[in-house]
Amino acid sequence: MAKGIPTRSEDYSQWYIELVKQADLAENSDVRGCMVIKPYGYSIWEKMQQALDKMFKDTGHVNAYFPLFVPKSMFEAEEKNAEGFAKECAIVTHYRLKADPDNKGKLIVDPNAKLEEELVVRPTSEAIIWSTYKKWIQSYRDLPILINQWANVVRWEMRTRLFLRTAEFLWQEGHTAHATKQEAIKETEQMLDVYATFAEEFMAMPVVKGKKSENERFPGALDTYCIEAMMQDGKALQAGTSHFLGQNFAKAFDVKFSNKEGKLEEVWGTSWGVSTRLMGALIMAHSDDDGLIIPPKLAPIHVVIVPIFKSDEEFARISEKAEGIAKELRKQGFSVKYDNRDTQKPGFKFAEWELKGVPVRIAIGPRDLENGTVEVARRDTKEKQVMKMDDITSSIPTLLDDIQKNIYQRALKFKTEMTTRVDTYDEFKKVLDEKGGFVAAHWDGTAETEQKIKGETKATIRCIPLDAAVEEGKCIYSGKPSNRRVLFAIAY
Amino acid sequence: MAKGIPTRSEDYSQWYIELVKQADLAENSDVRGCMVIKPYGYSIWEKMQQALDKMFKDTGHVNAYFPLFVPKSMFEAEEKNAEGFAKECAIVTHYRLKADPDNKGKLIVDPNAKLEEELVVRPTSEAIIWSTYKKWIQSYRDLPILINQWANVVRWEMRTRLFLRTAEFLWQEGHTAHATKQEAIKETEQMLDVYATFAEEFMAMPVVKGKKSENERFPGALDTYCIEAMMQDGKALQAGTSHFLGQNFAKAFDVKFSNKEGKLEEVWGTSWGVSTRLMGALIMAHSDDDGLIIPPKLAPIHVVIVPIFKSDEEFARISEKAEGIAKELRKQGFSVKYDNRDTQKPGFKFAEWELKGVPVRIAIGPRDLENGTVEVARRDTKEKQVMKMDDITSSIPTLLDDIQKNIYQRALKFKTEMTTRVDTYDEFKKVLDEKGGFVAAHWDGTAETEQKIKGETKATIRCIPLDAAVEEGKCIYSGKPSNRRVLFAIAY
Ligand SMILES: [Zn+2]
Ligand SMILES: [Zn+2]
Repeated sequence: MAKGIPTRSEDYSQWYIELVKQADLAENSDVRGCMVIKPYGYSIWEKMQQALDKMFKDTGHVNAYFPLFVPKSMFEAEEKNAEGFAKECAIVTHYRLKADPDNKGKLIVDPNAKLEEELVVRPTSEAIIWSTYKKWIQSYRDLPILINQWANVVRWEMRTRLFLRTAEFLWQEGHTAHATKQEAIKETEQMLDVYATFAEEFMAMPVVKGKKSENERFPGALDTYCIEAMMQDGKALQAGTSHFLGQNFAKAFDVKFSNKEGKLEEVWGTSWGVSTRLMGALIMAHSDDDGLIIPPKLAPIHVVIVPIFKSDEEFARISEKAEGIAKELRKQGFSVKYDNRDTQKPGFKFAEWELKGVPVRIAIGPRDLENGTVEVARRDTKEKQVMKMDDITSSIPTLLDDIQKNIYQRALKFKTEMTTRVDTYDEFKKVLDEKGGFVAAHWDGTAETEQKIKGETKATIRCIPLDAAVEEGKCIYSGKPSNRRVLFAIAY
Repeated sequence: MAKGIPTRSEDYSQWYIELVKQADLAENSDVRGCMVIKPYGYSIWEKMQQALDKMFKDTGHVNAYFPLFVPKSMFEAEEKNAEGFAKECAIVTHYRLKADPDNKGKLIVDPNAKLEEELVVRPTSEAIIWSTYKKWIQSYRDLPILINQWANVVRWEMRTRLFLRTAEFLWQEGHTAHATKQEAIKETEQMLDVYATFAEEFMAMPVVKGKKSENERFPGALDTYCIEAMMQDGKALQAGTSHFLGQNFAKAFDVKFSNKEGKLEEVWGTSWGVSTRLMGALIMAHSDDDGLIIPPKLAPIHVVIVPIFKSDEEFARISEKAEGIAKELRKQGFSVKYDNRDTQKPGFKFAEWELKGVPVRIAIGPRDLENGTVEVARRDTKEKQVMKMDDITSSIPTLLDDIQKNIYQRALKFKTEMTTRVDTYDEFKKVLDEKGGFVAAHWDGTAETEQKIKGETKATIRCIPLDAAVEEGKCIYSGKPSNRRVLFAIAY
């Protein structure tokens, strides 16, 4: 158990917050609800960005950049979208400060610099982007438009939590425009698959792919697809969403194209995003009471080497070996840290790198020099083994691969165990109460039932899984007929 | 001359604006002063980012992320900095919209959601970052801190111009903290060198390294170093700045560290940045009346292949060769576009790729198939040559290299020609009037003279070059003694 961090069973919520801070991932700033992403945390986010950006480009998307501000009249054009975000928007009303006449050295908002029209700091960019697409789209030849943007957005959340819910966060938002409904739906589904692949292959985090109920849809979308992950405390976390927007934004911003027959049609749209929230998911999915567990594919440092020595002479001989190993591994593309600080003991270093989730630790002591060995510890299982020094450069890649797989398998097993089928409302409540996790149950498809269940249990419909089998049953709440199970859970 | 774009000699300013739009780099948005960076423009910016990011990391820096908003009281803490930016700040005063009771479907700012303290949208991040550094720095062991941030910032400019001056722009801002003055100055100088290297090696744009006069310093800095480039119309452009902040921000935010002797000292700081303004510099430094000229190291597409055919059968045979060449070049790491559209004629394609500044164009026609040749045209000089198809994969890398160097040499020659030494104020005014460019002249070192010259000629001191020779002389304006020449110019 790391210093000052409660165990997960003691206080999961506090464990998370303290881990984020002590592992140097992020901290709260003096700006209400806004976080500072610290260098170590940011370097994990950069790895996520690189992997996602490549996947977006491989599927034909390009990056662009649209304004931070949305004029109020533009913001309100798509009514449902505007209604959905109006309650949590930062609003710019002035463009100048001036010296406070009553208070030397202080500034006040200059009342003469009031904007004619207020600007909304983007909570999402559909409005500004579709108002731009209107200028770009005339003909079917201008379609599809496949654009992604890496940006910051602001949603004025009242209760914030590092990475999971912050007033400002970083994300990517894809915004595509298509000539046909079918093509837009295909894009929506494709991007959901991209997110699922990223979550599973890079984050080692199994997800359920599904559709949201009408209640939980993105404001302005006809359909919201999502990936849902299971955290170690039995709560679900929505890790990415992909929205089929239909022609809603085309209608709101009057975006039409002439088809091959020369007839005007409204453009079909999608949008899709993942955010720094994924950092929270990554941490909560895998980490343990000793600190972070980062899957090798996202680890800023793959291997740390710690020397164990008593004399300067020993230190010099060990360092020579350590630098050699580091050099070889770096040649293979791994990131290696040789922790040669002489101000800290090995035990301190071990704990620190465990806290930071480095997948592999190599310790080298004087006896290792004699025997031509090293001690290799893996972060995921904490197993240690003695390896021949000569084998290191061939065995480390395999080990990292194995760690990546093991973390995924462990999370998959957990997710499977934490998915319970129930057929009565009593069972449903009992499972939520005693076990948590996903609860697969029949639902009558009405918003009313969904709301009542949420009111009574706090559980929401996370999704209607895409692979849900057709199965006749009765709604656990209303007893009305249902033909597939949906996944309920208490969620972040 | 490209369609709808005036030549440079007809109207340089309009040539620039039209080129930016027609080459699909950027456009004005419906948000006052904010631009949309279009995919092609953004892909050049991405190349710049990648190169700079690597240079920052190679010099020991890490990335992090700090909040977009700065509370007013924090903003005003460093007085000079606050004063410098107060007049051009976007201010968030409210955090919610609500339905307009008088206007169905419209929204108004909710007067009940007024912030207790206004938030400034960051025009630069010294304030928020130093208020954070205060928490991170206690001891000399916590220093140096070498952090960079990629972010958007907002400065409410009244007259905007795509890339060169926009209300919102993208940039990177480095913010470092050091134990000694000497180390901070070294960092300031190091980052100036990084910028100069980037400008010359990647942008193929020669620059003058220098220091700003007190007048032109960054608000809150003790010294501002800059790189200045020469545009084709004889105006100078400041392409990057690196500031030695002294202990100003440490004083404003009370950031102290205990040194090795256990004594408290104030921390020394630097900050440095380049922005999407570099896109403007890149365009204006090299491009011609036919469109962009992009140095190969920043070109999103290195080579475009255009087939010239009459029949489907010819097209099929040419395509086979073209795909083969593209594949080989891609293997070598080049970005290749095979323009196989059958909706456009070769002449149209040639003009389009010239407009977009692709460094090398390969044309393949039926006769080339017979002869085993291709026609290779370079964008910078417009020279064409016939090459053997078999040599392509070995000669293209050399050609790209040559283009990169030639663009730089051409710009260097221009910069040299456009730097004039003058010894009298009459000469000074004549050169500014008839030739433009940098004017190297003696100056008495006073802000008063600088202001008067600016008032009379619009020329400002771009910098005091770091390599200026010590040379006794008399100020062209006041006749007072001076010991080195400074560079004046009319600037963007
Ligand atoms: Zn959501
Ligand atoms: Zn400036």
